[in-house]
Order: sequence, then C-alpha cells, then structure tokens
Amino acid sequence: MPHIKLSEDQPGIRGLFAYRPETAKPLCELAEVLLHAPGTLSPAERELIATYVSSLNDCFYCQTAHGAIAACHLGGDDLLVEEVKRDFEHAAISNKLKELIRIAAQVQRGGKCVRPEDIGRAREQGATDLEIHDTILIAAAFCMYNRYVDGLSTWSPADPAAFRERAAKVARDGYSGIPSQVSG
Amino acid sequence: MPHIKLSEDQPGIRGLFAYRPETAKPLCELAEVLLHAPGTLSPAERELIATYVSSLNDCFYCQTAHGAIAACHLGGDDLLVEEVKRDFEHAAISNKLKELIRIAAQVQRGGKCVRPEDIGRAREQGATDLEIHDTILIAAAFCMYNRYVDGLSTWSPADPAAFRERAAKVARDGYSGIPSQVSG
Repeated sequence: MPHIKLSEDQPGIRGLFAYRPETAKPLCELAEVLLHAPGTLSPAERELIATYVSSLNDCFYCQTAHGAIAACHLGGDDLLVEEVKRDFEHAAISNKLKELIRIAAQVQRGGKCVRPEDIGRAREQGATDLEIHDTILIAAAFCMYNRYVDGLSTWSPADPAAFRERAAKVARDGYSGIPSQVSG
Repeated sequence: MPHIKLSEDQPGIRGLFAYRPETAKPLCELAEVLLHAPGTLSPAERELIATYVSSLNDCFYCQTAHGAIAACHLGGDDLLVEEVKRDFEHAAISNKLKELIRIAAQVQRGGKCVRPEDIGRAREQGATDLEIHDTILIAAAFCMYNRYVDGLSTWSPADPAAFRERAAKVARDGYSGIPSQVSG
C-alpha cells in the first residue's frame, strides 16, 4: 500500500505524477532528453542502461517498465533485455554499451566509485564525452526515480505483459506528454 | 580533474549545467519546485533535508552549496546547519523536521528502506502527505544530483566561504534562472 493517498488506477511513478503535476513536469522532461530525444546512443541503448540500473536498485516497476520500452525499441526482443539484466558482459550488445553499463553500475554504488580507468575503457570503445555524460546522468537519475517509486511504496502490476501496451506508446511518443495524460 | 572536458570557471553541477543546457533546464526546474517554491515546509527546512542527504552521500560540493543556502534562509546560522549534519536528533529543529530527515536518510539507503512506522512517526508530528511526498522526492533527487556531481568528478572550491555569495542569490531568486546564468 502506498505511504500516502494516491489515485488507485495509476501504478508506479504514474500515480506520483498524477499526485504532484509540478514535479511530474521536470521529471518527464528529464526522461525525454535522456532516453528519447535524438542522440548518438540509440533509445534502446539508453533504455537498457536505465533498466540495468533499476534492476541493481531492485525496483520492480522501473526495471519492468523500462525493460518493456527497451524491448519495443529492439523490435520486441525481451530476451536480450533479460540477458542484459542477468549478465550484460555476455549479452549480444556492443563493447561500447558494455563499458557504459559498467560505468552506470559504478554510479549506482556512488558517484565517487567511477574511476578514470572506467572512463578510459569506455573511450577506447569509442564513447564520446556526451555519451559518458548522459550515461552517468541516466544512472544517477534512475537512482532518483527508483527511490521515488519504492520510497513511497507505490503499487505495480505483477505481470510484465501488463506493461507492453504503454511501453509501445512511450517508445513511439516519448515522455513529454505523460504529465497531461496522467492528470487527464 | 573532471572525467569529461568542462569549462573550468564553473564548479560542481554548474559546470555540468553549462555543458548540457538541455538537462540543466529540468534539473533546475525540479530543484525550484522542491526547494524554493512556496510550500508548507520552509525553504530552510527543505534545504536542510537536501544538505543532510548530500552529507550522507559524502558529496562535498552539494552539502556545502545547499548548507550555505540553508544558512542564508536561517539568517546566517551556519552552526545550526553543522549541527543538523553532525547530529540532527539533538539539533535545535522541530520534531517534525527530525522525523522527515529520518525518512530522507532511509531513502538515501534505498527506496525500500522506508517503513510504514517511519511514515507513522512523521504523521504523529504533524507531517502531511505532501510534506512526506516532497521529503522523499528531495532525498531521491539528491541521490541523483550527488551522483551526477561526483560521478563526473567535477571540481569544488575547498573553502565553504566561497559558496556564500552565490548561496545568497539562490536563497533570494531560486533555481529557475540558473541555466541562463551558466550558459551566459
């Protein structure tokens, strides 16, 4: 049961967006820039980073929601998302993405855990400054979203299939429109 | 030395705001709503929560910057800010704020660490749903800002006195104008 009174029809962070539209707006704008706006990392790659960090933080809602969005961007490849969560080192993803996920995992432990050699290895695989910046901010942001969702004890559908329809919509339209949807 | 090339004249998160204005905008809007916009928790109380979480995350830049802003709101009472950081249970703050800081500390450990009894004790001291919500989101957001600042290894002035002038400006004007200041 959520720690505060929320509308019962919206799970996870969506119930929180409906409760507090003033914070929903910047939280969705941040997700839009980091995960969906044009960039040299594909939306699938960025959603995989978000999913992995959410799994490290043991946030069921976020890892399932963003895992479903990543799978949409990957043409429905749920298996690859599961592989990345379980053992990204051996998943069928680029070496660059593996190094970026490694950096994201260090950020999840704490900002000071990111070492120059972690950055160096990502650069060797072709990562740019902007890609390194965005990876670190995605990881940091999910340390916020995950704590927000679980810190208020929001509810989540148990069945991953329940996330698919909305995931397709977010994969297509992004995050900017969410505040008006949930308050509507 | 920062992990990526940043302009050298802006410390901490300000260098990151100048580097990536697209993310600076929602990050500052979120801080404005949570820390500075009108609310039933005073700006001083909200800045103290942010300062305390930043000290738990051992982020020198954020705890010093927001500690200085909190002190400004408190008429220059640096000592109270230090007391809250060192031992908030015995600091000269309200029982309600003590309970909210206790919740924030649980969020810093992880979202699932917040227990119904933590929320119950805050309610007994008069905390409302909105105050509990905002406390949890402030704590979660500083788990992001702290990781962002330290994850990219930004520099910080060593002397807390160097933070005072800007703190006075932020205490007065808030966070909304920052993206245009740093990019100017």
